[in-house]
Amino acid sequence: MKIEESALKKESLLYEGKAKKLYKTNLKNLLWMEYKDDATAFNGEKKESLKGKGRLNNEITSLVFERLEASGLESHFVKKISSTEQLVRETAIIPLEVVVRNVVAGSLQRRTGLHEGMELEEPVIEFYYKDDALGDPLVNEDHIRLLQVAEPEQLHTLKRQALAINTQLSRLFRQCGLILVDLKLEFGKTADNEIILADEVSPDTCRLWDAATKEKLDKDIFRYELGSLQEAYEDILNRLGGAARG
Amino acid sequence: MKIEESALKKESLLYEGKAKKLYKTNLKNLLWMEYKDDATAFNGEKKESLKGKGRLNNEITSLVFERLEASGLESHFVKKISSTEQLVRETAIIPLEVVVRNVVAGSLQRRTGLHEGMELEEPVIEFYYKDDALGDPLVNEDHIRLLQVAEPEQLHTLKRQALAINTQLSRLFRQCGLILVDLKLEFGKTADNEIILADEVSPDTCRLWDAATKEKLDKDIFRYELGSLQEAYEDILNRLGGAARG
Ligand SMILES: Nc1ncnc2c1ncn2[C@@H]1O[C@H](COP(=O)(O)OP(=O)(O)OP(=O)(O)O)[C@@H](O)[C@H]1O
Ligand SMILES: Nc1ncnc2c1ncn2[C@@H]1O[C@H](COP(=O)(O)OP(=O)(O)OP(=O)(O)O)[C@@H](O)[C@H]1O
Ligand SMILES: [Mg+2]
Ligand SMILES: [Mg+2]
Repeated sequence: MKIEESALKKESLLYEGKAKKLYKTNLKNLLWMEYKDDATAFNGEKKESLKGKGRLNNEITSLVFERLEASGLESHFVKKISSTEQLVRETAIIPLEVVVRNVVAGSLQRRTGLHEGMELEEPVIEFYYKDDALGDPLVNEDHIRLLQVAEPEQLHTLKRQALAINTQLSRLFRQCGLILVDLKLEFGKTADNEIILADEVSPDTCRLWDAATKEKLDKDIFRYELGSLQEAYEDILNRLGGAARG
Repeated sequence: MKIEESALKKESLLYEGKAKKLYKTNLKNLLWMEYKDDATAFNGEKKESLKGKGRLNNEITSLVFERLEASGLESHFVKKISSTEQLVRETAIIPLEVVVRNVVAGSLQRRTGLHEGMELEEPVIEFYYKDDALGDPLVNEDHIRLLQVAEPEQLHTLKRQALAINTQLSRLFRQCGLILVDLKLEFGKTADNEIILADEVSPDTCRLWDAATKEKLDKDIFRYELGSLQEAYEDILNRLGGAARG
């Protein structure tokens, strides 16, 4: 999509989330997304402003979406507008968090009792119902049918796309010396009813460990106060930027 | 199976659970099951002894298993030995609680935000991983594969059997003026690797509401202190006994 920079105008605020703001634009079906410096965890209970986080997540997400596109995997991403802003296609978000896991960590460890760091022979997919009041609960396919959030065929598309994205990104991060432990994806329906990857793909929404030291370089640093989040995200950006240029 | 009463002997205690005791017998692959008067809820946090409960659950479960058998649905049940005891086939229990739901209640209400009492167009099946230390968490089919608790084909059998049992029991209870809101089933593998229904089917493991008044006649009475549990269970036994005779 070719967009004349001068033709693009930010219009009214559509939605302010915990990490981003979404604005309408003067162009049909295009939204202006602004990454904030806010960090939240545990369903919003822990909250802090971390200077530079918005820029880091915007830069990282932009690189990731560009790399996905280069591999033939579509997303809502159109282009980066500034260091903290990007232009995306408007979608009707399917209210499911699609989680793909390659290594045991976080709630998978608590749910199964398996030890953190155990490598999965096959990726595990989980669906969480996006509903803050209910605490984004895990749901199975019967629940999804009951809640009417996705048709069986759409669910199949979500899984297929999520696995393809996971394969591609595991490879990309591996080239940067990082292990993609797990990632949370959101998908949306475009105006012509196509299902595409939306939202963000950043260390806020992925678990990334240094391949050699197993050091955590993602939002777990904020959750469990393990050090400087910005330093870790900057490290990831540098490694990805290197990979993108290479 | 024909068992000579005089030939049968109770031997060592195999397992004492919260609601039942299991003993070996002198006969191969047969266990002696004793229903206790103990009531527990919220993963064992709430606990009480309720005189007569063991008898009621043994009588009700026995009637239910007999009715299932009459409809061609097998279980571990062999025969009632006394008012609180029964003889069952030994199985290797598959560590999954298989829950079938016809009406929204309990954790389904909390998970989905749908209102209690909403009738489901199609039954909803859920699997919970039987692990007290983990709090019997909900699991999806990927978790089940990862935990290696059941093969995909066995899972299919569990679902098929659970749905058939639910259909049959919904009809049976409906004839007694009761709504089968949901039920929790456990399955086990026999010596010849057959998967059969095991454990119990009682108001401890089913939600049963009076069809006319919607009064709760199951363990929710104990969970939420709604009245006399024994009176409700006696009512169910009477209605079922009537249906069994009729
Ligand atoms: N292409 C898109 N079109 C429409 N909405 C989008 C698109 N991409 C992301 N969103 C939505 O924009 C919001 C992003 O904001 P943010 O990540 O801050 O939300 P949040 O605090 O995580 O809350 P929640 O995801 O629960 O709404 C999310 O609701 C996300 O689903
Ligand atoms: N046919 C069978 N063969 C072997 N074990 C059985 C059979 N039927 C039921 N069981 C097991 O016997 C035990 C019954 O005891 P009870 O219902 O009191 O257990 P519980 O306190 O619910 O604990 P848990 O089910 O978590 O072990 C359960 O562990 C159940 O799985
Ligand atoms: Mg978000
Ligand atoms: Mg039990």
